[in-house]
Amino acid sequence: MTLMEECRRTVPDTVRKIAEEEGVRPEKLARRVAEGRVVVPAHADRRDEVRPVGIGEGLRVKINANVGTSPEVCDPDLEVEKARAAVDHGADTVMDLSTGGDLREIRRRIMKAVDVPVGTVPVYEAAVEMTRRGRAVVDMDEDDMLRAIERHMEDGVDFMTVHCAVTLDALEDVLRRGRALGIVSRGGAIVAAWMIHHDAENPLYENFDYILELAREHDVTLSLGDAMRPGSVLDANDAAQHRELVVQGELVDRCREAGVQAMVEGPGHVPLDQIPAVVRLQKRVCDGAPFYVLGPVPTDVAPGYDHIAAAIGGAIAAYHGADFLCYVTPAEHLALPDVKDVILGVIATRIAAHAADTARGMKYARRENEEMAEARWNLDWDRQFELAIDPKKPRHYREERPPQAKELCSMCGEYCAIKILKDALEERR
Amino acid sequence: MTLMEECRRTVPDTVRKIAEEEGVRPEKLARRVAEGRVVVPAHADRRDEVRPVGIGEGLRVKINANVGTSPEVCDPDLEVEKARAAVDHGADTVMDLSTGGDLREIRRRIMKAVDVPVGTVPVYEAAVEMTRRGRAVVDMDEDDMLRAIERHMEDGVDFMTVHCAVTLDALEDVLRRGRALGIVSRGGAIVAAWMIHHDAENPLYENFDYILELAREHDVTLSLGDAMRPGSVLDANDAAQHRELVVQGELVDRCREAGVQAMVEGPGHVPLDQIPAVVRLQKRVCDGAPFYVLGPVPTDVAPGYDHIAAAIGGAIAAYHGADFLCYVTPAEHLALPDVKDVILGVIATRIAAHAADTARGMKYARRENEEMAEARWNLDWDRQFELAIDPKKPRHYREERPPQAKELCSMCGEYCAIKILKDALEERR
Repeated sequence: MTLMEECRRTVPDTVRKIAEEEGVRPEKLARRVAEGRVVVPAHADRRDEVRPVGIGEGLRVKINANVGTSPEVCDPDLEVEKARAAVDHGADTVMDLSTGGDLREIRRRIMKAVDVPVGTVPVYEAAVEMTRRGRAVVDMDEDDMLRAIERHMEDGVDFMTVHCAVTLDALEDVLRRGRALGIVSRGGAIVAAWMIHHDAENPLYENFDYILELAREHDVTLSLGDAMRPGSVLDANDAAQHRELVVQGELVDRCREAGVQAMVEGPGHVPLDQIPAVVRLQKRVCDGAPFYVLGPVPTDVAPGYDHIAAAIGGAIAAYHGADFLCYVTPAEHLALPDVKDVILGVIATRIAAHAADTARGMKYARRENEEMAEARWNLDWDRQFELAIDPKKPRHYREERPPQAKELCSMCGEYCAIKILKDALEERR
Repeated sequence: MTLMEECRRTVPDTVRKIAEEEGVRPEKLARRVAEGRVVVPAHADRRDEVRPVGIGEGLRVKINANVGTSPEVCDPDLEVEKARAAVDHGADTVMDLSTGGDLREIRRRIMKAVDVPVGTVPVYEAAVEMTRRGRAVVDMDEDDMLRAIERHMEDGVDFMTVHCAVTLDALEDVLRRGRALGIVSRGGAIVAAWMIHHDAENPLYENFDYILELAREHDVTLSLGDAMRPGSVLDANDAAQHRELVVQGELVDRCREAGVQAMVEGPGHVPLDQIPAVVRLQKRVCDGAPFYVLGPVPTDVAPGYDHIAAAIGGAIAAYHGADFLCYVTPAEHLALPDVKDVILGVIATRIAAHAADTARGMKYARRENEEMAEARWNLDWDRQFELAIDPKKPRHYREERPPQAKELCSMCGEYCAIKILKDALEERR
């Protein structure tokens, strides 16, 4: 039985644990998992190993960090270190997107190194195998794609992105009407190129029942990829994107019928005024399935700082209902991220999630903001650092620029607003 | 005649220049200046020296960078360097908030060092003078406050923050109902402490006509401070804040009657769901006066990264109508910023402004996003860097992690989505 099926009958332990942590009723959470409005990614073989993480309606916004080698930079130790750093700084899940080196071995090492759910994109491996056999990526056949999926399921990944929802209709939209920036999803481009080359429908769509069988067997959560996610704010919300969204909705229904957990991936690059509509539409069309967004970035001119752009878009998306934010690092659009980039990406994304949870009235966020206000009123710096999303950096600022008056800071010194007001109030008593 | 009065009769050259740069009709812009919906801060004596900058309705969102010494860190050379770095990285204005060293000399040096409008907060100087005379800040009298304002006007500052709108009513709200974090505006705390100590109405409110006379004489733009801006998201939109806003609206009317340009300062710390309301309310109550916000930050737990939190809030505020974003640096709440902090603060705020302008459909933003999409499609890296808000950092990423295949990047290498799609399209032709 998959977790979703179990939740239709009872309240599994995993769900109880999450309910307690999140402060929701266990029965309510189990119902949401049963209905597919919350996912708990954990491979059948890893249910007792993996930290229970719930993603979806009514829960704290979660964040994912991507790591993985590339053909250009292949250092498995570095990727393990990045995965660990991501989790240490607060990532709720990790995806291994490796395309260089011994992919299976790297995957296993990353899954061992962290206790959070791990996701992958098997079609990358299918592509890498073709290249290594001296063939073009588009020379793969549908069995190559499906075998990669099967292999990842057997290896125990907890969730995986499958680009099943991009169909010839949507591709035709891109080809006929044009786009500022074509297709920028890596997996999406592989599948689309295959469809163009073979002039054939998406084999992952056509074989979706088989994928469901595999996912059901291993209780792997499917993340329905968005091949057509815009790569420029100018392409946001075009016909291609929405054709794919409608198919994602269809596939969500089929997942639920099969007892397979599913979430839906979304954009990408979106002007901020359009973000609320994107989220609401997804929630409607996909009947409340958890929404997993990459960014979105609301401007295209911030390379080197796309973690900041993505924090803007991610906060707005999460406030309007996105459940799961994929981090964006400062290296996005430029290079494979290093450890420092990973940490900055995680922190920026956590700020976005916290801002959203604050606006959504989540109790934990309110309590943390209250405690921070109290620590600031008390000029209690150690407590401020403890409460900070990242305690290290603010502590470093203070150690680097210590104030002469210990309780104050070097910005205002004796003209500290809090101190001036407190003194006046004290005198008044 | 002040610029506002001139605009009631004709279209001054300064306004023509701005209109051309911003792509709006000069007559329309002059009308907006005349009505007080756009300000062009430039002291009467500096109108030909200072870069013309328009802030308000229909114009590109502008950003301000604060610099200035503190009693703790007093290095005038550093502050000049920070002011220059801010402008080099795209700040539209600079405020000198110095409270350490020879304040007048530092002010003059900063005004000489940059060509953008420079603003100040004269009440800081009044407070510093009291401290230097061995007295308490609250021992100043109203003449001390007014003389500081007059001195700054005589020194040629282009705009200044005056905390005229905080009244006993609003202060009573804070004292009676309490707040998570009292008063965090430095100038606001000085004025409020004075009011508590003397049990008297705000002298800057009571002498507003005199301040208007001075401002009219020197054509200095008044920035109506928000003493009651929340210092925690929990205090956002409370009665105290709104009492002050109503008075700010009254003062805007009085500025317009006197022919004095005015903008209105706003929060602060605000949960993101409340930001649109804050902006709309300000625009309504202050009859379209330009809105100058500090941040706002939508979560309190991001010390060390408040430039990111502020970018989230600033983008939302600016999209909903805020015209002018005061930057927040990573050192906010912790220490006096250094040059690196200033640069990061400016860049993060420019990203917020660009995201807002993209969503508002500003033509320049659309063109820049289009050009970036084109450069990305062409894998033209040099062009991408040219178009970036900060060309240096992305260039550094690429130089530090050069790809083997020159046209690609180290993240995806040969599995570049753009390359895969382009190859498939080429083959199809």
